[in-house]
Amino acid sequence: MKIKHLVVIGVGLIGGSFALALREKQLVERVSGVGRSLDNLLLAKKLSIIDEYHQQIAPALVDADMVFIAVPVAQYKTIFEQLKAHVRSDIIITDAGSTKTSVLNTCEQVYGEIPDYFIPGHPIAGTENSGAVAAFASLYEQHKVILTPHQGVSQEKLSTVHQLWQAIGAQVFEMDAQHHDRIMGATSHLPHTLAFCLVNMLANSSQQEEIFRFVAGGFKDFTRIASSDPEMWRDICLLNKTALSEHLHSYQNELSNMLDAIENNDGAYLSKLFEKAKQARDKAIES
Amino acid sequence: MKIKHLVVIGVGLIGGSFALALREKQLVERVSGVGRSLDNLLLAKKLSIIDEYHQQIAPALVDADMVFIAVPVAQYKTIFEQLKAHVRSDIIITDAGSTKTSVLNTCEQVYGEIPDYFIPGHPIAGTENSGAVAAFASLYEQHKVILTPHQGVSQEKLSTVHQLWQAIGAQVFEMDAQHHDRIMGATSHLPHTLAFCLVNMLANSSQQEEIFRFVAGGFKDFTRIASSDPEMWRDICLLNKTALSEHLHSYQNELSNMLDAIENNDGAYLSKLFEKAKQARDKAIES
Repeated sequence: MKIKHLVVIGVGLIGGSFALALREKQLVERVSGVGRSLDNLLLAKKLSIIDEYHQQIAPALVDADMVFIAVPVAQYKTIFEQLKAHVRSDIIITDAGSTKTSVLNTCEQVYGEIPDYFIPGHPIAGTENSGAVAAFASLYEQHKVILTPHQGVSQEKLSTVHQLWQAIGAQVFEMDAQHHDRIMGATSHLPHTLAFCLVNMLANSSQQEEIFRFVAGGFKDFTRIASSDPEMWRDICLLNKTALSEHLHSYQNELSNMLDAIENNDGAYLSKLFEKAKQARDKAIES
Repeated sequence: MKIKHLVVIGVGLIGGSFALALREKQLVERVSGVGRSLDNLLLAKKLSIIDEYHQQIAPALVDADMVFIAVPVAQYKTIFEQLKAHVRSDIIITDAGSTKTSVLNTCEQVYGEIPDYFIPGHPIAGTENSGAVAAFASLYEQHKVILTPHQGVSQEKLSTVHQLWQAIGAQVFEMDAQHHDRIMGATSHLPHTLAFCLVNMLANSSQQEEIFRFVAGGFKDFTRIASSDPEMWRDICLLNKTALSEHLHSYQNELSNMLDAIENNDGAYLSKLFEKAKQARDKAIES
């Protein structure tokens, strides 16, 4: 299972932590980093995340047996074009993109047919911090990773990727890409968009300054995710549009019902709703 | 400024922590606890939060020079009736209720005119935990406390309450009750109701179990507040109905605009919105 030469495209929190974790478990011999920012690549080398770096993909691919793509999904088209032109078919390509249907569509668009060596993945891990400086070897320990293999996938390569994630401490699940997007739409993309809306609404208030002075703990927790990378979230919203807009419509209904209950002084409805939410949340978090 | 005999009505996280903090600073000589649950009162005595306890208000009030009300606002009417019947006019009564207009209305309803010794307050502090067991002396350190004095307030008693909160580490602000309710509606009540709606919507999904299995960090932060006490939140929603429903309508507009942008692939709108939210949130949290 040992990787001889891993190429990490995008040496940030996600890509850098993957490399560091594999190094720590001695599961990789050599790591090349590819990225646009020379400063970040120099820092990644200094931090021993990578052994060498390139600003172009092609030269990094010499002798590569695994490629890990950890850049915003909007950049995948160019990357797949480079990979298609330069990799041997015994390679394994996997990724960390947070919307999987769109990734498979882009791959198919470039390749004609999705190659058996592409194993789409999504580690559910991260912090608000970014860049090589934010990477650390234990990021994936006890975190979930979802793989969304397509029909023509190489079972052997799927198994290798599965085992690598397990070896660095992750719990690995497999499901189809559409299902992944629906689930993530509900548990991650929906809360993010709601938090962005809340912060924005308050920022537009005439009492903005005073409001932000009195933010309580609940607000801070609730809106931590609104400090995430705006570009990445724009892409996620658009790339998971189908599932996310469905969830947002459901949410609007839920919110209208609550508002009606408040305006009609319907304490019984509110008690029931809050009780149910508390039970569901407590159960979800302990499990 | 030292209090000889403090009566805490409701010896939970809020009331218990207030007593512990005053004790630690040697600002109180004797503390009586009043509550419905004998178990909780016994525990509070065992934990040295209180010196004695009563299940009725009247017997606790003998020689009291300060009363701190820390029970759900829905119980205030009965409490004010008891206090009106049994306290001397040199007392100070203050509270920790999270909606202030309704508290003043209840007080006026019972007393006819709000007495000069009632100093309404709201410490912006708390955890999801409750009961005497959850109380700790440093809860209010570096937390904000808002006092909402009415027109006929005793300036001397207002000043005493102000100084007591400062002495136990809180930052104290004064503003009128309506203004308090508007600000708290935006920074606390609105986020709570949004979190309750999210958890409830997901709990109603046919894929509930799988969804809750894959909740990510963002979801946990976002919904922590949905684990708060359901009864208390029902009351807050109804007692701060005016401000809260206004905020909820604004939020619905914000959400509709975002949904339109997603469905129309309006990346430019989303980028602008997310960028603005990130800046506002980062600024709010660092200040």
